[in-house]
Amino acid sequence: MNNVKKSIEPLRGFRELTPEEYKKKKFIIESISELFEKYGYGEVETPTVEPLSLIELKVGEEIRHRMFRFKDLGDRDVVLRPEGTISVARLVVNKMKNEPLPIRVSYVANMFRYDEPQKGRYREFTHIGFEHFGSRSVVSDIEVINIAIEALKKIGIESFKIKLGNEAILRKILSEANIEQKEQDLLLGMLDRGENEEFFEKLSRKGEEKILNVFRELMKTKENSVGESEQTLRKILAGFPAALEEYERVRIIENFLEWKANGKYYFDFGFARGLEYYTGIIFELYVPELSVAVGGGGRYDSLCKLLGRDLPAVGFALGVDRLMLSSQVKTAKQKSKKVGVIILEEDAETIKYTFQVVEQLKEVENLNLEIDTMGGSLGSKIERALKKNEEAIVIIGKKEQTEKRVSVKRLKDGVQKSFSYEELKEKILEFIEQ
Amino acid sequence: MNNVKKSIEPLRGFRELTPEEYKKKKFIIESISELFEKYGYGEVETPTVEPLSLIELKVGEEIRHRMFRFKDLGDRDVVLRPEGTISVARLVVNKMKNEPLPIRVSYVANMFRYDEPQKGRYREFTHIGFEHFGSRSVVSDIEVINIAIEALKKIGIESFKIKLGNEAILRKILSEANIEQKEQDLLLGMLDRGENEEFFEKLSRKGEEKILNVFRELMKTKENSVGESEQTLRKILAGFPAALEEYERVRIIENFLEWKANGKYYFDFGFARGLEYYTGIIFELYVPELSVAVGGGGRYDSLCKLLGRDLPAVGFALGVDRLMLSSQVKTAKQKSKKVGVIILEEDAETIKYTFQVVEQLKEVENLNLEIDTMGGSLGSKIERALKKNEEAIVIIGKKEQTEKRVSVKRLKDGVQKSFSYEELKEKILEFIEQ
Repeated sequence: MNNVKKSIEPLRGFRELTPEEYKKKKFIIESISELFEKYGYGEVETPTVEPLSLIELKVGEEIRHRMFRFKDLGDRDVVLRPEGTISVARLVVNKMKNEPLPIRVSYVANMFRYDEPQKGRYREFTHIGFEHFGSRSVVSDIEVINIAIEALKKIGIESFKIKLGNEAILRKILSEANIEQKEQDLLLGMLDRGENEEFFEKLSRKGEEKILNVFRELMKTKENSVGESEQTLRKILAGFPAALEEYERVRIIENFLEWKANGKYYFDFGFARGLEYYTGIIFELYVPELSVAVGGGGRYDSLCKLLGRDLPAVGFALGVDRLMLSSQVKTAKQKSKKVGVIILEEDAETIKYTFQVVEQLKEVENLNLEIDTMGGSLGSKIERALKKNEEAIVIIGKKEQTEKRVSVKRLKDGVQKSFSYEELKEKILEFIEQ
Repeated sequence: MNNVKKSIEPLRGFRELTPEEYKKKKFIIESISELFEKYGYGEVETPTVEPLSLIELKVGEEIRHRMFRFKDLGDRDVVLRPEGTISVARLVVNKMKNEPLPIRVSYVANMFRYDEPQKGRYREFTHIGFEHFGSRSVVSDIEVINIAIEALKKIGIESFKIKLGNEAILRKILSEANIEQKEQDLLLGMLDRGENEEFFEKLSRKGEEKILNVFRELMKTKENSVGESEQTLRKILAGFPAALEEYERVRIIENFLEWKANGKYYFDFGFARGLEYYTGIIFELYVPELSVAVGGGGRYDSLCKLLGRDLPAVGFALGVDRLMLSSQVKTAKQKSKKVGVIILEEDAETIKYTFQVVEQLKEVENLNLEIDTMGGSLGSKIERALKKNEEAIVIIGKKEQTEKRVSVKRLKDGVQKSFSYEELKEKILEFIEQ
């Protein structure tokens, strides 16, 4: 018995959601998925289990060690996907060769990371996201950020903060010191993990004092007000024309944000994200209820090339399970009315007649049907109907079956009325709402 | 390069679906999920990764050897769930103790089995299903079968066949020969796999000639017409009162099916299903386009007891990926019109103004927006808009931005009209549809 008792718990870090809990999750997914569709993003599906070699291409040190990794029955090294972008990029490269650019795709998928569970951090979690392939234009950067903001607003979140950075600027400065991409990935990974000391130590071994100073200055930018930020940045980046050019893009994004998210965004030019594939603008979204980000994204222009096609890209994903923890999320009201269906005598003919009545009732919009399957007295059936918050009950016995009629009892006032089988469909809603 | 090329393929038996392909899958899931809700089933979510010990409780020999099984980083024996019922039953036992009965829950979830891939058989596949807990009444059996049929009809499938059997009858006959449940599970597993010779050999070793004969007769029932079936069954089961009593339930179900699925169902009393937990009515659904079942279900009254609460149950699931292979599925027509948004000059102010226009346009119902992010000449932009089947394009340049106006070009006849920023939202649909 004890053995069974133990086995029934879900694994640590994994969750089970009841209908009441899942309702919120479903609302978030459906609302945001509808928004993505509105902006031309078509949903795709990719495998939950992927070759280790695919995911290792660009997932980054931080996640690499926390993957669900194993050998399948065919002795292949496989992983449960820890994120969605790499698989979606592979799908676009493989199967959407003839699509006119830009290619817009979205996904809702579960991800797996062997993290230490905490509030908002689970070992299985759902991402809803999208990717925009083919454009290098700053317009696509802004489209992505715009939809990210719209997504939060659509589910009721008005109080949020966007943190932005730019990995192109960081990489262009590192390139000046002849640091190659592989090493750039490692260094930016350190910044992401907040290992600033290690970062500066590694950089100082390169002996590039100028570069060191620039990074020290960039680290401070998050403390700047939006106004002083521009002057400071132009000063810091003065000796790096390639980085300055990238900064012009940032200014266009900032001009958009001043209108769209006034007071709700800040730039931190010392900020990097854990995934290795970012090459331009990056951003994360925060809500006051949670210390971890509820979503993030950015530009990754070199990932697709690794997979066989040179396509620039920018994308974004939200953590649905984290959004569920925000008290700002307002789920839509239930429009449907619940009606119980009660069978008085459970013989073959009365049961068949009941399902014929159900076939009529299922055509009525905004009416949900709960057929009573528990037996017992009419009194106990009515009691159950009240517990389940049904608005009315449809009562069918031998008498109703032979006469081809149906009795309906309104539960708020107990009024009962008899309808013919034919008129029921037309008249039930009106009677219930009286 | 060759190495990369190899790693980009999905694993054998796993699929990636483009927006065009996924549209059909999403239509099936949304339609059936809506139906489940109509009948009072609330959606739940359970983990993809489960303790081996949970799944092994009752999954059956057939599936046990084909699971994705591994040790996680905490050295636990875990599996990717091969089916949904066991986890859902655990959730109901664990977390829905205070819910009035019956408890109705539904799920949409991916399952994993290391099968040899073939048409309609993948290593990862989506089940949409529901479970009905707490009722022993034949009304709940019929409710489940009724919804199964409704689900097929809702997505356009009118040509289908239901195969029914009853494991209670089989188990009650085996019990007469003092065969215990564990051994019953093994014997019924043989029937499921079509290992009839092994089944009879094992049974004959028990020396129960009477039982052997009954099973030989039951095997032939699927060839009977519906009319003769009743007499034959009553004769076969004459010496087994417990089995005969169960047959009375079957008669009630058959009376319902004669009306609901006339000519589309048959009983095969020698039929058993691979999952070990079934204890009563079982059924499978077939469509002519596919040799494997597109769905199935049945009654399992002893599973919940193993998990800590004695709850009878009956449930059902459909294989979404198999349904996708049916040519009968009719997806709903796209209502939305696609409109392109074209930016002539990509400076900060024009871009910002464009997104202000987008903020207006996103309020228009049934309008999907595709912002052009590819740059180039107006001619190439219009060409792309035509390729993407957009019905109109919204054109914004420096001029429009300074004058707070917007130009809209209808693509079917090339007519272009200028709107003020304020009037656009009200008038665009009318102009496009002219």
